[in-house]
Amino acid sequence: MLLDNTAIEILGLIAGIITSAGFLPQLARGYKTKKLDDVSYFMPIVLAIGMSIWFFYGFILSAFAVMIANAFGVSCCLTLIIMKKKYS
Amino acid sequence: MLLDNTAIEILGLIAGIITSAGFLPQLARGYKTKKLDDVSYFMPIVLAIGMSIWFFYGFILSAFAVMIANAFGVSCCLTLIIMKKKYS
Repeated sequence: MLLDNTAIEILGLIAGIITSAGFLPQLARGYKTKKLDDVSYFMPIVLAIGMSIWFFYGFILSAFAVMIANAFGVSCCLTLIIMKKKYS
Repeated sequence: MLLDNTAIEILGLIAGIITSAGFLPQLARGYKTKKLDDVSYFMPIVLAIGMSIWFFYGFILSAFAVMIANAFGVSCCLTLIIMKKKYS
């Protein structure tokens, strides 16, 4: 093993936070410009489905970091879908 | 345990494929319209960083599904960044 278990858990947690937070700049841009025409509806829809499965995966493994990161990610995706709907 | 280990692995693999493929509709839309003005640069950049950490996480755990899914995801993010640069 390159890293011990705690280090691996922390690495997974950091990765989960970063990927889940990746939508925040998109939400901020959409909110500022009130335009999301060039954003595909399918991207947040597909990602929300995938992240829901990750959430369920975390739930089964009692991996709270995975659950929290993906619950946050799904919320961001749903917000993006609602914003796009509203601004179009 | 709700599911056995193989089922959990498969669940993680499905989740990884779906979240990594989430960018494809965005790439397709950008390619068709040649416009990505409303897409924030930071979204694919942040996601590429997060997915790179997931890739490293998968590498340490020898979890090939995690590695493949995230390598694909990083490629999609980089393609989106290049496309946005080109079309703007």
